[in-house]
Amino acid sequence: MKSLAGSAGVVETKYFSLKEKIRLENGLDFGPVTVAYETYGELNKNRDNAVLILHALSGDAHAAGYHTPEDKKPGWWDGAIGPGKAFDTEKYFVICSNFLGGCKGSTGPASINPETGKPYGMAFPIITVEDMVKVQKKLIDHLGIKKLLNVAGGSLGGMQAMEWAILYPEVVESSTVIAAATRLSAQNIAFNEVGRNAIISDPNWNNGDYYGGDFPARGLALARMIAHITYLSEESMHNKFGRKLQDKTQIDFNFDVNFQVESYLRYQGQSFVDRFDANSYLFITKAMDYFDLHQKYGSLAHAFKNSNCKFLFLSFSTDWLFPPNELKEAAGTLMSLGKEVTYCNIDAPFGHDSFLLEFEHQPKIIKNFLKGVRE
Amino acid sequence: MKSLAGSAGVVETKYFSLKEKIRLENGLDFGPVTVAYETYGELNKNRDNAVLILHALSGDAHAAGYHTPEDKKPGWWDGAIGPGKAFDTEKYFVICSNFLGGCKGSTGPASINPETGKPYGMAFPIITVEDMVKVQKKLIDHLGIKKLLNVAGGSLGGMQAMEWAILYPEVVESSTVIAAATRLSAQNIAFNEVGRNAIISDPNWNNGDYYGGDFPARGLALARMIAHITYLSEESMHNKFGRKLQDKTQIDFNFDVNFQVESYLRYQGQSFVDRFDANSYLFITKAMDYFDLHQKYGSLAHAFKNSNCKFLFLSFSTDWLFPPNELKEAAGTLMSLGKEVTYCNIDAPFGHDSFLLEFEHQPKIIKNFLKGVRE
Repeated sequence: MKSLAGSAGVVETKYFSLKEKIRLENGLDFGPVTVAYETYGELNKNRDNAVLILHALSGDAHAAGYHTPEDKKPGWWDGAIGPGKAFDTEKYFVICSNFLGGCKGSTGPASINPETGKPYGMAFPIITVEDMVKVQKKLIDHLGIKKLLNVAGGSLGGMQAMEWAILYPEVVESSTVIAAATRLSAQNIAFNEVGRNAIISDPNWNNGDYYGGDFPARGLALARMIAHITYLSEESMHNKFGRKLQDKTQIDFNFDVNFQVESYLRYQGQSFVDRFDANSYLFITKAMDYFDLHQKYGSLAHAFKNSNCKFLFLSFSTDWLFPPNELKEAAGTLMSLGKEVTYCNIDAPFGHDSFLLEFEHQPKIIKNFLKGVRE
Repeated sequence: MKSLAGSAGVVETKYFSLKEKIRLENGLDFGPVTVAYETYGELNKNRDNAVLILHALSGDAHAAGYHTPEDKKPGWWDGAIGPGKAFDTEKYFVICSNFLGGCKGSTGPASINPETGKPYGMAFPIITVEDMVKVQKKLIDHLGIKKLLNVAGGSLGGMQAMEWAILYPEVVESSTVIAAATRLSAQNIAFNEVGRNAIISDPNWNNGDYYGGDFPARGLALARMIAHITYLSEESMHNKFGRKLQDKTQIDFNFDVNFQVESYLRYQGQSFVDRFDANSYLFITKAMDYFDLHQKYGSLAHAFKNSNCKFLFLSFSTDWLFPPNELKEAAGTLMSLGKEVTYCNIDAPFGHDSFLLEFEHQPKIIKNFLKGVRE
């Protein structure tokens, strides 16, 4: 049996149901809402050592530790969360919740619509990053936490971390924004749109009404394959696969898998189908597309004008999905507002996925930043 | 009626049928083969002013001029081919042929297999860039041309231009290679693989046997949408679309087209379906994946060692599908072999598509290069 030393140990997913409906950004009141979440470490007496971790598109509440001692894989950010790690569970009470619209325990399109007794499917409301954050705030309230030492996340998680700092300046003491942007670019939207089209083009999708029937596996696998290319850098794909052949020594002139990169992508697509809901993919990518702090608040300066937290912005040199320049410019805007911002572009080869893979510099920078939050 | 002045005028597509089968790179003898081609300008008495234009994935033989005076659009490279243009039809006899495997008049998967009396579909043989070039050589022989002043193409056309210089050093006097690479990268293969998967995931694809039935339109449209993103730069998408909304003033929280970029991509996908064959897309992208001059010839130096033409290598600053560095390095290798190489990285915002869109610097550079070929 593996040693759990150095990890958050055996953890379990908990569930919290909101007492009331929530008012969504689109104006609708929506409920009931259940939130799946996990916690690591202990909340201190002053209840002021809490850190909220925010996950990305395909993430879940299981950010660290193992669900059973036999688990092969730890949570998705185990490299950053645990005893002595960036988010040190010996110091901090770390919370991670599956966001609204997901498919990992929180209410989403696959949840039962109480009005029909069937899964929502496309009757699920359009949600936004703000809505995700508002639900998380209810969880924090429920846990009796009034101050968050830090809110942190990569990619869509970083967008939530920004929205937290804007919506709840009285709660957030610091915000760690990694591999994200203050709005999605045309290219970001384009990739999301193609992924959505792959799903809705799958005849099994059936206008989102496929629960209990055939799952739109081909469409979701395609969407994941497309997205996966954008998560890696050209450099990391070259280093990992190059033009290496799969189980053969020379090209065999057919349409089977020829190259390792093809095999890898097909595997990524297939395995995603086993763990993700196609409708959730539609709703979450839409929430990302709508994310635009400039448009929503009139300007970036206006968006952050009431925030009074410290900011850590981290980008990665080879991230072409959310290029470093995005957060660099945002950091500049915040500095010009007199906010305390640390911006760092980490030299890492893994592309956008660096936030999940780079554990040489990233943890040190976060650790130091967290130490200084109350200084 | 539009003026045809300044263009190659009204042109027609001609057809040539090879007398014999051709030996493919995979070892098979294949035929019959028909080649669709167009010519612009006049072959001179010495028959030594011919230039061969090589098209990219979705191109065809119609590179310049108009098929009728009423045509709205000229050929795909009309900006570069015509009187006084880069490939000056007052000086040169310009030839462009649709390559083997295409669907624009040359033999491809949609052609009738004489053995069955039905379209080949997936019974079409796997072809390579070398095979495309060998068929073009038959056309050149048929036209009674012993010397090509220049072979030129962008993207897959550039790969053919390199293969021409390698396979027929006695014919090719100069080679213009634009927005290409000496081998496809892992990322290139990955995008092609996802496109192919989109097609074969479409139930209408039916193992390639869809002729006369329902066309795999959704799959091919998806493949084109994915590819189209890679043809544009992030910068050009930002400049062209940014986050501009389609026919509305504010986000309306639904899954309709919200952003202009979504509308544009859907249009690109749909219109491609009207003009391209899904099986051709499979075979041509496979030919691209297999393109690797390093592996095929042992090394790049070995590949070009017998070439005795002058080379012009052009890349574009924002091309991330075939990044400038690819051709820059190849130019370095050729120079170290003592070959005459001009390399130029053109500053242009249009991404990979720059070779089809940049007519400020590109034509001047090509024009000057062509003037010097026999000096």
